[in-house]
Amino acid sequence: MSMVLKKQYLTIVKIGGHIIDNEQELTHFLRSFAKLEGPAILVHGGGKLATQLAEQMSIPQQMIEGRRVTDEATLRIVTMVYAGYINKRIVASLQAAGCNALGLCGADGNLIQAHKREHPAMDYGYAGDVDTVNDLLIGGLLEQGMRLVIAPITHDGKGQLLNTNADTVAREIAQAMSSTYETRLIYCFEKEGVLRDISDVASVISVIGKSDVRRLIEENVITAGMIPKISNAVAALDGGVTEIIIGKSDRLHQLVCGLSGTKIIHG
Amino acid sequence: MSMVLKKQYLTIVKIGGHIIDNEQELTHFLRSFAKLEGPAILVHGGGKLATQLAEQMSIPQQMIEGRRVTDEATLRIVTMVYAGYINKRIVASLQAAGCNALGLCGADGNLIQAHKREHPAMDYGYAGDVDTVNDLLIGGLLEQGMRLVIAPITHDGKGQLLNTNADTVAREIAQAMSSTYETRLIYCFEKEGVLRDISDVASVISVIGKSDVRRLIEENVITAGMIPKISNAVAALDGGVTEIIIGKSDRLHQLVCGLSGTKIIHG
Repeated sequence: MSMVLKKQYLTIVKIGGHIIDNEQELTHFLRSFAKLEGPAILVHGGGKLATQLAEQMSIPQQMIEGRRVTDEATLRIVTMVYAGYINKRIVASLQAAGCNALGLCGADGNLIQAHKREHPAMDYGYAGDVDTVNDLLIGGLLEQGMRLVIAPITHDGKGQLLNTNADTVAREIAQAMSSTYETRLIYCFEKEGVLRDISDVASVISVIGKSDVRRLIEENVITAGMIPKISNAVAALDGGVTEIIIGKSDRLHQLVCGLSGTKIIHG
Repeated sequence: MSMVLKKQYLTIVKIGGHIIDNEQELTHFLRSFAKLEGPAILVHGGGKLATQLAEQMSIPQQMIEGRRVTDEATLRIVTMVYAGYINKRIVASLQAAGCNALGLCGADGNLIQAHKREHPAMDYGYAGDVDTVNDLLIGGLLEQGMRLVIAPITHDGKGQLLNTNADTVAREIAQAMSSTYETRLIYCFEKEGVLRDISDVASVISVIGKSDVRRLIEENVITAGMIPKISNAVAALDGGVTEIIIGKSDRLHQLVCGLSGTKIIHG
């Protein structure tokens, strides 16, 4: 008779600008996050504040394929806004909701080390691609009962901070923690999930197996905007993550227990 | 025969704007801080960046007795600058110098809980006076070999961030840690220490006993600008801190071993 040791679930939730910019939605979401069972990590992106601040400071912003080109002035802004204002505001709100949150960026305790992105044709500036995640530090803090709130600012270990895509940060953390936990990676976005019929919000596909993805792309069910999200999800599965859920932030508990959103699983 | 268990020394260093605003001085200081022996905490203040940013954003700044009046827009700025840009830049530099730094503000892990300052005549806005320091969290992180870098933004436990004086944050942390460590609190400022003759930098008084303070004020040796610093030091001694050293940031190692600066001690 063999004995299977079931590992504990760790929930990693990523939220983006559309929630962060909406005070009421954010408050609602954070209250739900505070009530989640078991260890959990929140990765947050930016929101409009960084763009607004850049405008007020007359720093022109350039985007390449949805990614902000990070010159020195912009790096200063995203560090201030993401690792400062947004991160600490979320932490204070979670503390008020009885959740012992601790906010970090990738430089803190060498949490996420990255390197400056090299591209043959384009210069993304101080954009970082992740090399390593300090799973021991994360595991230790979680074991002390803390919830981590992580801003997508990383560092190169040589003193340089780097702006990193929050979806990627969430995935890399989930992958790194998969050796000690069953990992559940939740991407919150503005839709209910992957819809079979884009005009019908009730047509959410509840489960997509990794092997279904190609067919769904061929059938035009998974289209342009969704393809990077699904690719990221498939990469996460390949990296050891147990399940990925894509759905709406106002239904966090339903997302966790599979009553809402689209779950992407092995097989 | 009685046995005296000597506790380990914990060094708490506070740096202010004059170092933070000078790239070269800051780099030099951080390299020295990285090489300190034993557990250590760095508390940093602000610098000109917050004021510059407020100007760029056309937010008028008001000071009362050297303390910034913190309205909502100003709180957002100091949270961005102190807990974001300055904190993470210091952490990344320390990581590069081989020092495993972790940056926190008072909301993180409920590190420092405060309440909004009440004053019969003046409204300081979102200024916080410290209630509690989470010595267990600090002790645990130090025991894991981490150096803490602390921004003087606290919270009230009800979701409100508060701007708090960095000298006070350093003292409150030193006091809270005094039950488990011998605490050495170092205040870095622009002078060599307390000078017997203000025009002679070689006239640094190396040791001041608590009982000498009144006499030195009467003799006009401790004058206007120095009085709040010395009062803070005396309060720290009364709060259980082993020794307080006031001196110049470019001589950190000499300050630690009593070869520079003014040491304020019991007796």
